Amino acid sequence: MENLENSTDCKETVSSLNNSGSLLNSTVSRCDGKAMGFVLVHAGAGYHSESKAKEYKHVCKRACQRAVDRLRAGGMALEAVTAALIELEDSPFTNAGTGSNLNLSGEIECDASIMDGKSLNYGAVGALSGIKNPVLVARRLLSESQKGKLSAGRIPPCFLVGKGAEQWAISHGIPACPTEKMTTKFSLSGYKRNKRKMELAEQVETKRKRPPREHENDFGCLEPVGDIMVEGEENNLPSLDTVGAVVLDREGNVAAAVSSGGLAMKHPGRVGQAAHYGCGCWAENARDISLYSTAASTSGSGEHLIRTMLARECSTAMQAENTHQALLEAMQNKFISSPFLAGEDCVLGGVIVLRCCTCGEAQRSGDIQALLVEFLWSHTTESMCVGYMSAQDSKARTHISRLPPGAVAGQSLAIEGGVCRLGTVSD
Amino acid sequence: MENLENSTDCKETVSSLNNSGSLLNSTVSRCDGKAMGFVLVHAGAGYHSESKAKEYKHVCKRACQRAVDRLRAGGMALEAVTAALIELEDSPFTNAGTGSNLNLSGEIECDASIMDGKSLNYGAVGALSGIKNPVLVARRLLSESQKGKLSAGRIPPCFLVGKGAEQWAISHGIPACPTEKMTTKFSLSGYKRNKRKMELAEQVETKRKRPPREHENDFGCLEPVGDIMVEGEENNLPSLDTVGAVVLDREGNVAAAVSSGGLAMKHPGRVGQAAHYGCGCWAENARDISLYSTAASTSGSGEHLIRTMLARECSTAMQAENTHQALLEAMQNKFISSPFLAGEDCVLGGVIVLRCCTCGEAQRSGDIQALLVEFLWSHTTESMCVGYMSAQDSKARTHISRLPPGAVAGQSLAIEGGVCRLGTVSD
Repeated sequence: MENLENSTDCKETVSSLNNSGSLLNSTVSRCDGKAMGFVLVHAGAGYHSESKAKEYKHVCKRACQRAVDRLRAGGMALEAVTAALIELEDSPFTNAGTGSNLNLSGEIECDASIMDGKSLNYGAVGALSGIKNPVLVARRLLSESQKGKLSAGRIPPCFLVGKGAEQWAISHGIPACPTEKMTTKFSLSGYKRNKRKMELAEQVETKRKRPPREHENDFGCLEPVGDIMVEGEENNLPSLDTVGAVVLDREGNVAAAVSSGGLAMKHPGRVGQAAHYGCGCWAENARDISLYSTAASTSGSGEHLIRTMLARECSTAMQAENTHQALLEAMQNKFISSPFLAGEDCVLGGVIVLRCCTCGEAQRSGDIQALLVEFLWSHTTESMCVGYMSAQDSKARTHISRLPPGAVAGQSLAIEGGVCRLGTVSD
Repeated sequence: MENLENSTDCKETVSSLNNSGSLLNSTVSRCDGKAMGFVLVHAGAGYHSESKAKEYKHVCKRACQRAVDRLRAGGMALEAVTAALIELEDSPFTNAGTGSNLNLSGEIECDASIMDGKSLNYGAVGALSGIKNPVLVARRLLSESQKGKLSAGRIPPCFLVGKGAEQWAISHGIPACPTEKMTTKFSLSGYKRNKRKMELAEQVETKRKRPPREHENDFGCLEPVGDIMVEGEENNLPSLDTVGAVVLDREGNVAAAVSSGGLAMKHPGRVGQAAHYGCGCWAENARDISLYSTAASTSGSGEHLIRTMLARECSTAMQAENTHQALLEAMQNKFISSPFLAGEDCVLGGVIVLRCCTCGEAQRSGDIQALLVEFLWSHTTESMCVGYMSAQDSKARTHISRLPPGAVAGQSLAIEGGVCRLGTVSD
């Protein structure tokens, strides 16, 4: 077992109360690396029990390592972010790919998307069954669309769902994988427990002679509640979470990706934020009107993340002078207090973001390859597991961010982050 | 046959060349009505042959009438916009519901979405087969989500796709409809022609011993090219177009909806802009930070409309002082010249928008129910068919807007629109 390292090195932690009464937790980490790139991953915003912390951190660490391997081998942001996602999807502990939540029919249906900050191209799949790595299909949709139009001027698809997506993937050389191979003992036992609860609830409803709302029960929580694990349920089921990553490569390109098995016991065909343009991930290279390259990837309650287009909002917010303040305001005003979620008293989600520019010092010395990376994560859920690594680091740093004691999930938020100066190889 | 009326009354037409060389066509129409509401519909941006103009206008007229019937009966914007969409979907001439384009497998798979400007709630379906009116499923998803959470704190879905969406619809009382009943002789003959062309192309490719790109041919256009009908092909197939509507009700609420059969010969599972949040339709009531209620609905090349989030962009642009200029700039800078479509030399789409505020005159006289509606349409396609009507009008006005002679589709645009003052019943 590798020795896991967390992000306590060189960090400053600040806790404060903002104007609207939200508890904040702010951490700043610093690192240095060569200009070959940087990766920040998440294994979801939700509740991560102390007992499972090690597994989650380990998954994040491996995902960072895979991305950095690609960067060191000369790979670009898009390749590196895909490599990170494959590792996150393959973990049985995450709610993506293998180990995904089962839907009402006991099937796995995955959502995933990827965005390239350089071309601004995008690929996504929704409610996809039978493919081990949904991100590979999203990635292939993106790359096929970059080959130009199909015959008759038809535009290649950027978003495929369901059986059609599965067929497209297989016809493009991505192997099929039976649901059974992607189902874990944890996801299956959770499904069986939830199913029993629902059957019991329906019996009670029948006795009351009130027609039950489809699949509804009065017995409190199903387990887990989507991506969100209610505290105390950790002994019943693992904390199953959406995954994602943002990457910067040596040329300053950014890319972002996200992948999710969606809500536990969701209706078949339900598509969440991970497949939704602007909602699950976002990446935009710096261009005329923007100083910084920015990228974001989200996790949490899919419908809330869709209606607030949180990935795009947070990525765009990173153009502001003060990243910490900008992300705080975005999470507060465009998520917790968003008019698009006016009726919601508990808004659960999280985001990882990075931005990059050529740093001042480097400009003065003529070292135009040096890049300054600012990276942050923020969540309104109990916790969020992240990992990050520059291409010069020997190991990834991993961390489970938690709301400060007493903070109310869905109403408060935590923000942490760091800065990383990536010099040239000759530094 | 009813006598069709177009929008030539009280209109001013201006043609000019803007800075970037796009040809513009600007028309302003004026009408008056009681404060019971207003509807603007479209039967798609594409190419509408002169020979079929009558049918398209007739469909738009009936759709306006259905919406106004609901408004007069006290219905709100959401009900009225649904009524308009059902009429548009039921027409065999439109590419939505009955008469939708067939996909590569000869199946109908529809996309639709609806947004309520008051609650900002949203519902959508993608790649939905077997349901006559996809908008009804989107509408039901929206209304179910307004009933609050499901058991265990699960958030109701806002977006369902494929078989799961069909099952959900049927379990919520929306009747199934066999694909055969939704297929018209036009859509079927077009499918057969396209299929023959593709088979021929594959034979030629085999002879050349170069592996063909999936479903690609060298024989020029399939017919039709998605929503876009290439001029001259009007004798082969009808011009099949996405449909949509925006509505204002007596209380100043706005709603928007869109519905589409998608590209002809699309890959099964392909989801276009009509199911995409922010891309197919948008509606936002006026609130603290915005003076106007605004709504939009789009049509055209789905992937281009997704990547530019055109519905939201155009709706948001309507907060500017000068609506005509704002829509021109949005279509020019955020669509034709969008960095998100940097590699595209032909960007085809169209949009209808409306905005509403309490008008100045009314404010002075204390008549707070009077509303000023500004409504516009703009397209980069050869033509766009629209209809509009206030609740006081006896008939809808319908119109096929065309690019000025010499303008290049995909690079130029046309803008037209009008204003409508809705007084109170006592006016």
